[in-house]
Amino acid sequence: MLGIGIDIGATNTKLAVLDKAGRCFREERFHTGQSAGPAVFLGRLGGILKAFKSAYGKKLVSVGVGIAGDVDPEKGLLRFSPNLGWKRMEVSAPIKRMTGLRCFVENDANMAAWGAYVLELGRGPGNVLAITLGTGIGAGLILDGGLYHGATGSAGEAGHIKIVSGGRQCNCGGCGCLEAYCGSYALLREAKVRIPDIAAFVNKYSVPNREKLNTVCLTKAADSGNKTAANIWAEMGDSLGRGLADMLLLLNPDYVVLTGGVSRAARHFMPALRKVFRVQQLKTPFRTVKIKVSKNADLGVYGAALFGLEKAGK
Amino acid sequence: MLGIGIDIGATNTKLAVLDKAGRCFREERFHTGQSAGPAVFLGRLGGILKAFKSAYGKKLVSVGVGIAGDVDPEKGLLRFSPNLGWKRMEVSAPIKRMTGLRCFVENDANMAAWGAYVLELGRGPGNVLAITLGTGIGAGLILDGGLYHGATGSAGEAGHIKIVSGGRQCNCGGCGCLEAYCGSYALLREAKVRIPDIAAFVNKYSVPNREKLNTVCLTKAADSGNKTAANIWAEMGDSLGRGLADMLLLLNPDYVVLTGGVSRAARHFMPALRKVFRVQQLKTPFRTVKIKVSKNADLGVYGAALFGLEKAGK
Repeated sequence: MLGIGIDIGATNTKLAVLDKAGRCFREERFHTGQSAGPAVFLGRLGGILKAFKSAYGKKLVSVGVGIAGDVDPEKGLLRFSPNLGWKRMEVSAPIKRMTGLRCFVENDANMAAWGAYVLELGRGPGNVLAITLGTGIGAGLILDGGLYHGATGSAGEAGHIKIVSGGRQCNCGGCGCLEAYCGSYALLREAKVRIPDIAAFVNKYSVPNREKLNTVCLTKAADSGNKTAANIWAEMGDSLGRGLADMLLLLNPDYVVLTGGVSRAARHFMPALRKVFRVQQLKTPFRTVKIKVSKNADLGVYGAALFGLEKAGK
Repeated sequence: MLGIGIDIGATNTKLAVLDKAGRCFREERFHTGQSAGPAVFLGRLGGILKAFKSAYGKKLVSVGVGIAGDVDPEKGLLRFSPNLGWKRMEVSAPIKRMTGLRCFVENDANMAAWGAYVLELGRGPGNVLAITLGTGIGAGLILDGGLYHGATGSAGEAGHIKIVSGGRQCNCGGCGCLEAYCGSYALLREAKVRIPDIAAFVNKYSVPNREKLNTVCLTKAADSGNKTAANIWAEMGDSLGRGLADMLLLLNPDYVVLTGGVSRAARHFMPALRKVFRVQQLKTPFRTVKIKVSKNADLGVYGAALFGLEKAGK
């Protein structure tokens, strides 16, 4: 029995064919091309799904789809995605038509959380808060051993929890959101303000031939002892710690799993994060929680495939 | 089949005997007398439980206990209660010894949440956030139709979510907690600072022969058009709205149920609370959530009895 996973991101769409044990039989990826619109996107997706069908035939039993946006899992549609710019897009119906398979749609952070729960933690601890650190910040919740998506599939909007009243401008239009302090766009915004000669900085700390201010460059700078970069990461860790502290008080998870590209800078932000946990007044949730930084870049698409298999009862 | 519910609060302990339909057959209450210690308390409790046993005999199948404090539901013990001043107290073991019945222990806000879910909402919506507004603030979570208590029974510590970075002093020792803005102690602290002649205020707005500054008095003042009191309630609504907004972003519940004594002032704080919800950038969780103010003062003890019956499979 095999399941197809699809992870639709603002930039790339990944596909994978997995069995229940998490073994990957095939992977594909293509540029989402959001500006061309949903119809063109679904056409490309259909081509790949058809190839999967002819390769694996009746072994395929389900499709799981994670999308960066506000998803209605009951109806299998995308309500809205600020990053994709798509609105009220049918997802499960066209995929079902194209494949004849049952299709389950969730927010991408939820699918990454399921992936972390199954692949990273082996379904051991029942309560897992998986945080995706990228341009923005998302969360997926595994509670009492099941994926929790809330009343309308919108649970886990952790990036917009307020950590500073009337604080920094967030991409969502609000102020003081966790994401406005810990999303990669916020970190780069800070870097641009604080680093006097940004061109020299980029030149010094970028990967050769990929000269660009990004979090990889900011990580390399901190590795090399650049104080400004180290401070930006330390402040990010403090902010993330405070946001997580609110979530831990409410949810008391066994595990926090940090995923996404920005989590690769964990060595620079974790000390400040752990310090926030140490000074909490209510001790139990902070003493008992375990924090894991995932190195698996494919939790989203693998999680989607595994979640589809789970929901299909396979 | 009947279940015993016990709600152990800092001031009073309530007991009730209920059937599964929520019909109450007997109620008792006594002063918890926390200063005399757990042994004296358990002695008094035992007397009442014995009376229940002789009245209802084999019809009794379970005991549910809610305690104001950090509870370990697996081991059936109270880890610590700041309000009771009790530490590492066995709860389910002595009750089991005294009654011969299965006993389930949870934080009191969890039991009130279960009571709200069963009695107020008829188990209709699957995801309910029940907020207890009293001296402090607690929360109980019903998620996907079950009581969620987290990894160590500590979930729902909503009173200590931070709403102002470096803000007002909280009873927990921390700063900027929701409770430090919306707990009754915080409201009265504000009143004492802002009302010039507090004796005259108390005299004017208290219930005759019960002259005391409390939230009842503050509510009556707001009813009579006192501007300071109205402002205190409006600010409380704004703070509560911001704290709830963070919780809604994370949990996306179908319902929020407000319980506890302070919820009786809802008419004075709800407009400001609803305003916070209206200006949120992420619309779905705020558009769909329903808010209910419970008038049932016994959700804690009723919920405990019903939860015991539920867990015992009756």
